[in-house]
Amino acid sequence: MYTLITGGTVVSSTGSALADVLVEDETIAAVLEPGSTLLGETFRAGLDRVIDATGKYVVPGGIDAHTHMEMPFGGTAASDTFETGTRAAAWGGTTTIIDFSVQYAGQDVLTQFAAWHEKAAGKCAIDYAFHQILGGVDDVSLAAMDTLIDEGVSSFKLFMAYKDVFLSDDGQIVRAMQRAAHNGGLLMMHAENGSVIDLLQQQALQRGETSPLHHGLTRPWQTEEEATYRAIRLADLTGAPLYVVHVSAKQAVQRIAEARDTGQNVFGETCPQYLWLSLEEQLGAPGFDGAGWVCSTPLRSRKEGHQEHMWQALRTNDLQLVSTDHCPFCMKGQKELGVGDFTKIPNGIGSVEHRLDLVYQGVVTGKISLERWVEICCTTPARMFGIYGTKGVIQPGADADIVVYDPAGHTSISVDTHHMNLDYSAWEGFEIDGHVDTVMSRGSVIIDAGEYHGRAGHGRYLKRGLSQYLL
Amino acid sequence: MYTLITGGTVVSSTGSALADVLVEDETIAAVLEPGSTLLGETFRAGLDRVIDATGKYVVPGGIDAHTHMEMPFGGTAASDTFETGTRAAAWGGTTTIIDFSVQYAGQDVLTQFAAWHEKAAGKCAIDYAFHQILGGVDDVSLAAMDTLIDEGVSSFKLFMAYKDVFLSDDGQIVRAMQRAAHNGGLLMMHAENGSVIDLLQQQALQRGETSPLHHGLTRPWQTEEEATYRAIRLADLTGAPLYVVHVSAKQAVQRIAEARDTGQNVFGETCPQYLWLSLEEQLGAPGFDGAGWVCSTPLRSRKEGHQEHMWQALRTNDLQLVSTDHCPFCMKGQKELGVGDFTKIPNGIGSVEHRLDLVYQGVVTGKISLERWVEICCTTPARMFGIYGTKGVIQPGADADIVVYDPAGHTSISVDTHHMNLDYSAWEGFEIDGHVDTVMSRGSVIIDAGEYHGRAGHGRYLKRGLSQYLL
Amino acid sequence: MYTLITGGTVVSSTGSALADVLVEDETIAAVLEPGSTLLGETFRAGLDRVIDATGKYVVPGGIDAHTHMEMPFGGTAASDTFETGTRAAAWGGTTTIIDFSVQYAGQDVLTQFAAWHEKAAGKCAIDYAFHQILGGVDDVSLAAMDTLIDEGVSSFKLFMAYKDVFLSDDGQIVRAMQRAAHNGGLLMMHAENGSVIDLLQQQALQRGETSPLHHGLTRPWQTEEEATYRAIRLADLTGAPLYVVHVSAKQAVQRIAEARDTGQNVFGETCPQYLWLSLEEQLGAPGFDGAGWVCSTPLRSRKEGHQEHMWQALRTNDLQLVSTDHCPFCMKGQKELGVGDFTKIPNGIGSVEHRLDLVYQGVVTGKISLERWVEICCTTPARMFGIYGTKGVIQPGADADIVVYDPAGHTSISVDTHHMNLDYSAWEGFEIDGHVDTVMSRGSVIIDAGEYHGRAGHGRYLKRGLSQYLL
Amino acid sequence: MYTLITGGTVVSSTGSALADVLVEDETIAAVLEPGSTLLGETFRAGLDRVIDATGKYVVPGGIDAHTHMEMPFGGTAASDTFETGTRAAAWGGTTTIIDFSVQYAGQDVLTQFAAWHEKAAGKCAIDYAFHQILGGVDDVSLAAMDTLIDEGVSSFKLFMAYKDVFLSDDGQIVRAMQRAAHNGGLLMMHAENGSVIDLLQQQALQRGETSPLHHGLTRPWQTEEEATYRAIRLADLTGAPLYVVHVSAKQAVQRIAEARDTGQNVFGETCPQYLWLSLEEQLGAPGFDGAGWVCSTPLRSRKEGHQEHMWQALRTNDLQLVSTDHCPFCMKGQKELGVGDFTKIPNGIGSVEHRLDLVYQGVVTGKISLERWVEICCTTPARMFGIYGTKGVIQPGADADIVVYDPAGHTSISVDTHHMNLDYSAWEGFEIDGHVDTVMSRGSVIIDAGEYHGRAGHGRYLKRGLSQYLL
Repeated sequence: MYTLITGGTVVSSTGSALADVLVEDETIAAVLEPGSTLLGETFRAGLDRVIDATGKYVVPGGIDAHTHMEMPFGGTAASDTFETGTRAAAWGGTTTIIDFSVQYAGQDVLTQFAAWHEKAAGKCAIDYAFHQILGGVDDVSLAAMDTLIDEGVSSFKLFMAYKDVFLSDDGQIVRAMQRAAHNGGLLMMHAENGSVIDLLQQQALQRGETSPLHHGLTRPWQTEEEATYRAIRLADLTGAPLYVVHVSAKQAVQRIAEARDTGQNVFGETCPQYLWLSLEEQLGAPGFDGAGWVCSTPLRSRKEGHQEHMWQALRTNDLQLVSTDHCPFCMKGQKELGVGDFTKIPNGIGSVEHRLDLVYQGVVTGKISLERWVEICCTTPARMFGIYGTKGVIQPGADADIVVYDPAGHTSISVDTHHMNLDYSAWEGFEIDGHVDTVMSRGSVIIDAGEYHGRAGHGRYLKRGLSQYLL
Repeated sequence: MYTLITGGTVVSSTGSALADVLVEDETIAAVLEPGSTLLGETFRAGLDRVIDATGKYVVPGGIDAHTHMEMPFGGTAASDTFETGTRAAAWGGTTTIIDFSVQYAGQDVLTQFAAWHEKAAGKCAIDYAFHQILGGVDDVSLAAMDTLIDEGVSSFKLFMAYKDVFLSDDGQIVRAMQRAAHNGGLLMMHAENGSVIDLLQQQALQRGETSPLHHGLTRPWQTEEEATYRAIRLADLTGAPLYVVHVSAKQAVQRIAEARDTGQNVFGETCPQYLWLSLEEQLGAPGFDGAGWVCSTPLRSRKEGHQEHMWQALRTNDLQLVSTDHCPFCMKGQKELGVGDFTKIPNGIGSVEHRLDLVYQGVVTGKISLERWVEICCTTPARMFGIYGTKGVIQPGADADIVVYDPAGHTSISVDTHHMNLDYSAWEGFEIDGHVDTVMSRGSVIIDAGEYHGRAGHGRYLKRGLSQYLL
Repeated sequence: MYTLITGGTVVSSTGSALADVLVEDETIAAVLEPGSTLLGETFRAGLDRVIDATGKYVVPGGIDAHTHMEMPFGGTAASDTFETGTRAAAWGGTTTIIDFSVQYAGQDVLTQFAAWHEKAAGKCAIDYAFHQILGGVDDVSLAAMDTLIDEGVSSFKLFMAYKDVFLSDDGQIVRAMQRAAHNGGLLMMHAENGSVIDLLQQQALQRGETSPLHHGLTRPWQTEEEATYRAIRLADLTGAPLYVVHVSAKQAVQRIAEARDTGQNVFGETCPQYLWLSLEEQLGAPGFDGAGWVCSTPLRSRKEGHQEHMWQALRTNDLQLVSTDHCPFCMKGQKELGVGDFTKIPNGIGSVEHRLDLVYQGVVTGKISLERWVEICCTTPARMFGIYGTKGVIQPGADADIVVYDPAGHTSISVDTHHMNLDYSAWEGFEIDGHVDTVMSRGSVIIDAGEYHGRAGHGRYLKRGLSQYLL
Repeated sequence: MYTLITGGTVVSSTGSALADVLVEDETIAAVLEPGSTLLGETFRAGLDRVIDATGKYVVPGGIDAHTHMEMPFGGTAASDTFETGTRAAAWGGTTTIIDFSVQYAGQDVLTQFAAWHEKAAGKCAIDYAFHQILGGVDDVSLAAMDTLIDEGVSSFKLFMAYKDVFLSDDGQIVRAMQRAAHNGGLLMMHAENGSVIDLLQQQALQRGETSPLHHGLTRPWQTEEEATYRAIRLADLTGAPLYVVHVSAKQAVQRIAEARDTGQNVFGETCPQYLWLSLEEQLGAPGFDGAGWVCSTPLRSRKEGHQEHMWQALRTNDLQLVSTDHCPFCMKGQKELGVGDFTKIPNGIGSVEHRLDLVYQGVVTGKISLERWVEICCTTPARMFGIYGTKGVIQPGADADIVVYDPAGHTSISVDTHHMNLDYSAWEGFEIDGHVDTVMSRGSVIIDAGEYHGRAGHGRYLKRGLSQYLL
């Protein structure tokens, strides 16, 4: 079965070129000069499908390396299942997610991993993989790290916040890092000083400061920056590589940049919300509205310039990629739990559908180049997490995960039109000067002409190798 | 006319994959899955040439962005002509050079540019382009910058040393930067504080310190670092991008890294000599032998760790590429001019033939990744200097400048075997665990099986566009 | 009762001058031109004492701002009592100590403070004051901070190590800092990452690494530097001033220097052992000998250059003063507890007698100026801890705590001659090119001509005010 | 002849204390407890003068280390002569100035020095000393440096701006620094990149930008910061100490701070105008009014926060002292020369009379401590420039240069009341919450109760020693 994507501009992380892409079954068979005569007339006549990409960009399917489908949190769970969430992702041009299997303190890692496999099995519209959250570092979970690497889980997330749930103390962090330095795993860090945040939250509540804005005010940039620096220093001590998730404070970026300047393998991701939204405008919205933007790390002050600094860091490669940290909770019945007490608001924003669009708008507005868009949304996520070659690049032999993106198209984001299982949009009213036209997952067109042609269960579990991005 | 390179591992700046490359006439027609059936048996039978790259790397032809063929210097001239130099380059897998048209103080830029065109025309074995040296920034030369951009010369080199020959004062530098900020040109800087170096040289000679080692001792790292910082600051003042040539001091790298961390478009190249050779071992060789390694910036002290820091900076992308600064002078009749007075030794080392090998040895020894080798030797030079797409990448539509590199091969470097017009080798005795097997320039095989099949005049002048690498 | 110190060179923190000092009873009555006729012949004839300081330095009595007399530690206690320790201090020209009242986790602060008062009352040869260690930050101990300030205890020490004994978590640290920002107290920090050290110790013991050297190897500089930075950042968050005790790692100094460059009130002390001794030479001594140099923070590697960096930081005022952290344990019966398990070696070195000499040797060897010696040993300790004016300066109205120091004298340090209650000397064999000739405490000569004339109980408790050193 | 200053609070750079100061003839004879009975009744009755300083500060006379009396500049000369300028200084509590002997390019240093001696001889109301400006570094002037050190001139000012008048190129700077490293002299640097400024000025004029504001806009902070860094690096290369004059850009301070953190002997002064005035408010005043604030370095933008940063740097000792750079030009007939062309406005502001007051107002407003006021205005200038002991401190044997300053007094600054020979005041309308009540110069009361009792010729030339402030 052959599909030809013809006439488009294939964009890679280093440049763009007019080229045709021939897909055979699930993989890319060839990349050819536009209208190449190599494909004889007979062959062309027998093509199963021809996609005219004239005037459009042909890019590798997006890889969202940070999602939390069905994630349990504070007595409720993220509102997107693996089914609804991956379908929404597909709508937005994302053809791979890396979700998190979760070990809470006291649980067994491998049992949890099995449970997460079960949740996802047969549900996903697109391919998926897992990171493993370690909520309890001990001898058993350290041994499980090795097993998981064999199972295709080569990255492990620790938390410096959320005491008694996820928090690892510094000794535990070092133990996990020592293991990673040995087995090749990549440590991911939620870098916030939980001990200080817990205190500031408690003090705020005692002062009667209960609104969503105080979620941000009790997580000042110092709590992120300090934890980031600490994680970097512990990584330095152990020789382990480090990947800092959802970086939002410019001072944390500065610490990461300095570590990289010394040759340390330290990486950082940011998320669309830290590129476009702010503490003042969104989190500080009147009444309880700000709850829709409660996430951790929190939105930062625009006056302090964090948002522009995130874009700059993406330009300079001091941050390497953009994930969503997709973790949606409905206002009704979920976010509402925190009326009168911001600490009870489930943390998370739903963006898995919009990542490619939201970052592409940075191309339109001159913040990053077209190539950098592909690099931070598709190519680097694949390299960082050990799936490059199969994913993240348009080349013969790679999975045919391909997006045809129309720079002349337009996308309006709204709760009325999005496909996530979420009763509001954190991005309501955002207008994107581009459009995801066609999405192919392993050779199957799953989105085209505004229609969804995918199915639950098309997506397969993806065993990942070790990071291909180390310095 | 078709050539198929089959069975090899195509290496790009982001990864590697088994793939076949089909060349039609001068360009790449397709990249296909290995043994693809798309190329029917008839077609295969009719192929003009098949290159078996099994077990080998297939990489874009090398781009040496810094050479000085026939460069006049201190009453003599670099010993490689465009003919001998580009032929030697071809032997080493380099398929494009960017040489320098030279305006000395007092000369007319465009007249000089025409003269350089004449020198090169009909002589080159591989494609070539020009940067323009501005030895006298004034109204006329500033206007010439615009003209040259139309002629395909989009980068302009200034000097902070060599008074009365090349040196621009800071006001002149700012004027050129202002023009570049306006016309899109890229300023290249020889960053050494000439005023201080002139003094230190004169003082050394007065003390009777005349040997080659004193070439290095009178150009201490502070003179490079200070000038680098000054250039960065002036670039910041004007908004112009800056490219620092032949960086050798780790402190200069630190200044470049800091500038990049703030989002400034500052780039740096280093050269093989700064990666492998040192002040103590080579420049300080007994007698007059060190003259063979007299170049500027000078070789640096290994005790101070500059060499390892250059490798680190290549890993972290604080330096972006490796050029040779190829500027060969024979010991006999040329370097000898400086017996008894190191300041009279013509400055330069000949390496154009060995760059790919010397940097590849860094892959072998674990200093950089295979992908980074391709990036810093082939892809980034193309992007930096506006020829990416035509050069620097293996993709349909690109010029078929391709190297088949054998990781199981071996290369011994020696004056007895090299092809440069040079009576010694700065790299005598270097052993490389790899080998340039086949070199194709615009579809023609010019090196194969240890034989040269190219010809003077095959190489064409390449009009370059503006830099494609800006942040 | 009048004493005249005549003919000496009075040294202050800004300069030196020949001057006579007239003491009346317990305080300084006047500073006069040498041989001033203001003191008529009759008056001179009636002087109770004349001390001829010709050719000698007359300096304010030393203030050792960090001692631990009788400090309970791991089932034993520091071997110097307030009586023996202050007497030894006097022999070395120290006329004030600031010792630590200790609250262990679970104890009541004010009860402990009362207990410490009792230990010291009637025992001391010289004046003494207290800092308060807070081993358990909670509502009660925070309230006690205010009370203690009224009692003359204006500085409070927290620990980032020693879990279940002293360790405050980051939230507790912030609470104490918030209180200090409000009541004017000065937070002192033992900055080591205890969680990581505990792990490294446990791993070392599991590997059978039990010797004293491993005390140092399991407390690498990263554990000090990280904790120092964290404390600085938390101080920044709260607006509290911060004083880092016993700084030994050059990287920690760098963090302090950077904080000061931003205008933050961050200060640091170092100790004689970090100026002169090293991990390789002392802590790594053969057999169990290294136990004599087990202290925390540990001695650092000389190869890494920490010692010279401490001197440099003292020159640049990135460190402000030198204390001893005097906490002596005998080899026999005390240090011995750790044979076969370095974690059981009581931590501490005895130096209270030698501080002035050991730092003066830095003057002799050109590391610091004479004035800086007085500043870091006498004047700044007084200002930092709120007793300047009474102590730390030679001026009318100040307590007559005065040392006559002979630059032509000589001091050999040895267990055979020292006066501390300690069965070895960490400074055995050190030779000092100077000598403490005469020591006056509140007008009484307590050391003179190699004899001790003091008495237990002469020393009084000194109520301190708030720090006089804040930026 | 005896004078007693009684009842006041003597303030030094480390603290304050109630004390009486007894002056005998020209020097301080004793510092005593207030009301000391040492001075018997007979003696008291015979005192020539008693100054009641109750409730007032008694501080060392101010030392203004940077003045330009009668300085020729652009065809005119600074409007204060040594006579008028030192008288005005006395009014403001300054009892020593260090002025500049000027060698313009092409002149002989020692001849110029003799000429400056002649200008000042017999004219000064207070003691004076000289720095030497070197406008032409060559063998002769380098040799003159040694001679001048013997003559009491131990500091030498170079310029990185003012081509053909003062500018030294980097080689010349290095030569002077090498000499200073050898003879103990202190290099002072006017750190602005003249080459860039000349260009920006010329471009501004070409665009018709002629008003005083453009004086500031054509000297952007980068031109100061770059030159400062260059000077620091050259000092590092030579081992010479460096003193940067009139620092106004916060970025320049940052470079100085970093150099000091590495242990380099780099110092900086700022001036009252950079502490209180701004580019927007003063230099940008309507019409030609801004000319009154044209000085170099220029006033900086308040929006960018330079002013507050200067205060911070004074607190942290990243800047060591405050001088005035007093160089007054009348609006009429002098500043007017630049109507229609800001480059023709004589550069300079007159402040010699107001320095103590203007810095004291920083004490009142909480920017610095009382002790720091004395340190940066009196003590450090003396130490920095080799006159401490004689000047800059209140101690027996020192010159009796003493100011009685009333914190309950008030000073209004205005052209109507000031004593400088200047037809406007750069400080018009400034109100100071303090007052210089009495000024004593070498034992003579020259200002008291609002009257001037001094005389031209009282002031003596002061031979200075080498700097007493080196790290």
